[in-house]
Amino acid sequence: MQATTDFKLDSWVEIPANSDFPIYNLPLGIIKHKNGTISATTAIGQYVLDLSVLHRLAYFKEIALPVGIFEKTSLNDFMALGKPVWKLVRQRLMVLLTRDNPELRDNKDVVVQSLFKSSDVEMLMPVQVGDYTDFYSSKEHATNIGLMIRDPKNALLPNWLHLPVAYHGRASSIIVSGHDFHRPKGQVTPPGINEPSFSPSKAMDFELEMAFVIGKSTTLGQSVPTSKADDYIFGMTLFNDWSARDIQRWEYVPLGPFLAKNFASTISPWIISTEALEPFRIKAPEQNPEVLPYLERSREDCSFDITLEVWLQAENSEAMKICTSNYKYLYWTMDQQLAHHTINGCNINIGDLMASGTISGPTPDSFGSMMELTWNGSKPIILPNGQERKFLQDGDTVIIKGYCQKDNIRIGFGEAKAKVLPTL
Amino acid sequence: MQATTDFKLDSWVEIPANSDFPIYNLPLGIIKHKNGTISATTAIGQYVLDLSVLHRLAYFKEIALPVGIFEKTSLNDFMALGKPVWKLVRQRLMVLLTRDNPELRDNKDVVVQSLFKSSDVEMLMPVQVGDYTDFYSSKEHATNIGLMIRDPKNALLPNWLHLPVAYHGRASSIIVSGHDFHRPKGQVTPPGINEPSFSPSKAMDFELEMAFVIGKSTTLGQSVPTSKADDYIFGMTLFNDWSARDIQRWEYVPLGPFLAKNFASTISPWIISTEALEPFRIKAPEQNPEVLPYLERSREDCSFDITLEVWLQAENSEAMKICTSNYKYLYWTMDQQLAHHTINGCNINIGDLMASGTISGPTPDSFGSMMELTWNGSKPIILPNGQERKFLQDGDTVIIKGYCQKDNIRIGFGEAKAKVLPTL
Repeated sequence: MQATTDFKLDSWVEIPANSDFPIYNLPLGIIKHKNGTISATTAIGQYVLDLSVLHRLAYFKEIALPVGIFEKTSLNDFMALGKPVWKLVRQRLMVLLTRDNPELRDNKDVVVQSLFKSSDVEMLMPVQVGDYTDFYSSKEHATNIGLMIRDPKNALLPNWLHLPVAYHGRASSIIVSGHDFHRPKGQVTPPGINEPSFSPSKAMDFELEMAFVIGKSTTLGQSVPTSKADDYIFGMTLFNDWSARDIQRWEYVPLGPFLAKNFASTISPWIISTEALEPFRIKAPEQNPEVLPYLERSREDCSFDITLEVWLQAENSEAMKICTSNYKYLYWTMDQQLAHHTINGCNINIGDLMASGTISGPTPDSFGSMMELTWNGSKPIILPNGQERKFLQDGDTVIIKGYCQKDNIRIGFGEAKAKVLPTL
Repeated sequence: MQATTDFKLDSWVEIPANSDFPIYNLPLGIIKHKNGTISATTAIGQYVLDLSVLHRLAYFKEIALPVGIFEKTSLNDFMALGKPVWKLVRQRLMVLLTRDNPELRDNKDVVVQSLFKSSDVEMLMPVQVGDYTDFYSSKEHATNIGLMIRDPKNALLPNWLHLPVAYHGRASSIIVSGHDFHRPKGQVTPPGINEPSFSPSKAMDFELEMAFVIGKSTTLGQSVPTSKADDYIFGMTLFNDWSARDIQRWEYVPLGPFLAKNFASTISPWIISTEALEPFRIKAPEQNPEVLPYLERSREDCSFDITLEVWLQAENSEAMKICTSNYKYLYWTMDQQLAHHTINGCNINIGDLMASGTISGPTPDSFGSMMELTWNGSKPIILPNGQERKFLQDGDTVIIKGYCQKDNIRIGFGEAKAKVLPTL
């Protein structure tokens, strides 16, 4: 059921060229209908298919699914059914949507009840996030930040090549794409000054990230080896770890970022299964020095070739692509991140979110934050309307997009989009 | 209904001298009966009173309480009913337990159904923690750590006196008192060495803390001023932020502690209401330099006089008190912590936990961690069995206790107790 070059699967639902959501993708998300009902769905072309309707009408009768499993406000209970069930549901959706299968296609009543234009529904948070962890796994990003704010001769700190550095983030303020937020205020200092003033942040930034969702829990004391990490990963999303650099600079010693990050983080609404991503596996960067045995990668091709883009749209201006990066640049891979996170016995729960950290590539146009793109404000970005940007202004919208492409098959992630509103 | 010197309230339930749980306390917790049923309870002397039974039998009929509200696995839904309801339930329990009131006392059938020996029930986690934040609010502790591991001339970092430093912790690994845990393993380095080895932690420590529980939510963008903080605080617990110092030393730059802390944190099972603590209000330490206006304290007596003790019990040895401290030493108070946490618009949810950071006092016997008590291992503690301790050994149990005392009235917190088991 995976994308290959030999065989091309089509759907009876019309799918525009370059759609993020061909029949090979079938991501899962939570929608709210105009009448207020909430249900789990998949995306197909410019439509969403309501799984709760299909389930009520026995389209999943061959799979042991609890009553009402697709009527929840998150995918957590569905994830708890386990990977074999995730796969069966995905396979069944693929069969139901295949061009030649009349089962759903010719049942016009059911199609009317279950297939909706994407523009007619509201996307909600796909999962209830328990704990959210943010890694710092791009060598290029960590090096750039080190060059700018620490000792340029020792841009990477001594631990960085030995372990995937991470910190705990705030789960409550993760918001789904399309929800704008207010610029944070707080204590800021100019660089080098140790007397704070109170102000809206003057150095609002985005961070281009991806995240994976935990679909299987562990108990306290248990560790997940890299070779088993796949069993625990439900799928992936786009992620924007909004950052207020001037708040961060002042507050972050010695315990890490806090108010500089926890005012908002934006997640894309569709979770792309690791199955859909299988054809896009790729080698991750070589690691030197050698890692400790518990961090040895599970396989050769343990990363994914996912093109990532950041678009900036000021008010009264066209959107402009300001960054093109790729997930494959990450030095630390998901299996390593998960093995590290649990090596001390830390338990993980269904719905936990693990973000990658800013994904910067090797070239200046692939840097994943304003701070890097403008080199700490020294090289402003010129927008289509002629304005300059060192950091984000009120009214600026940042849109993160991502997709895999191979042999005319494209698996897209949709987008993680939000606008910076003025401070409340 | 508060403790005063003028009037002493007694209960028809026998309460031993020096009990943590007189009729003035009435903390809330979640118990599991031997038959597996779970319910919300209060503690009175050496007994627990099952609120679900009383509710079913209409003992709360004057209060608008939902059916089954005391049959949940956490207090979160009860907290959501709001502060006026918390107060009414507390008042009603005080009336029901008063010596002269026959209402429950003389209804032997109901007493048998609802009053249980504490030793006959299991205490569960009292709340479902959404996000957990750990502050770093003891000046003595931050100074001690700075003296030991950073520049002794600048022990406090420049931001410390201007804001209550904090970081996000891991909610999933918070465990209730009585649950032991395994020593974490991971990457450790000797001081000054930048080449990690893989090992069980050799520098296991406790941190004497308290925590407060959020009982009222905010929405993203909203800030809680110090003057309104009380409305959001449901109550307080004891807290042990277990720490692996050798893991921490290597991993914590630049994003803060991660695996050094997230393997386990121990919470005491009873939540003491801020109402019960009212008579023990006290001034907090003066602050110099002056804080920014959003951090101005809400009132003169915005701290609490809570004696805190740490007991260490090695296997085959008596328990030994190794620390006596007090909550009142904290430089940053709860209203300031909450105002700071939300000043940037970060939203808080019912069930969030905000821990104080290690509570060290001014004298060496009041330091709240092994690292400080033994001054980084240079002054070992001698146990009753003659053994030395620089850090914790496998089999060591740490017990944190806390109580307020005034005019023969004692409000206790119970204990937060757990044993360090060998690495799995």
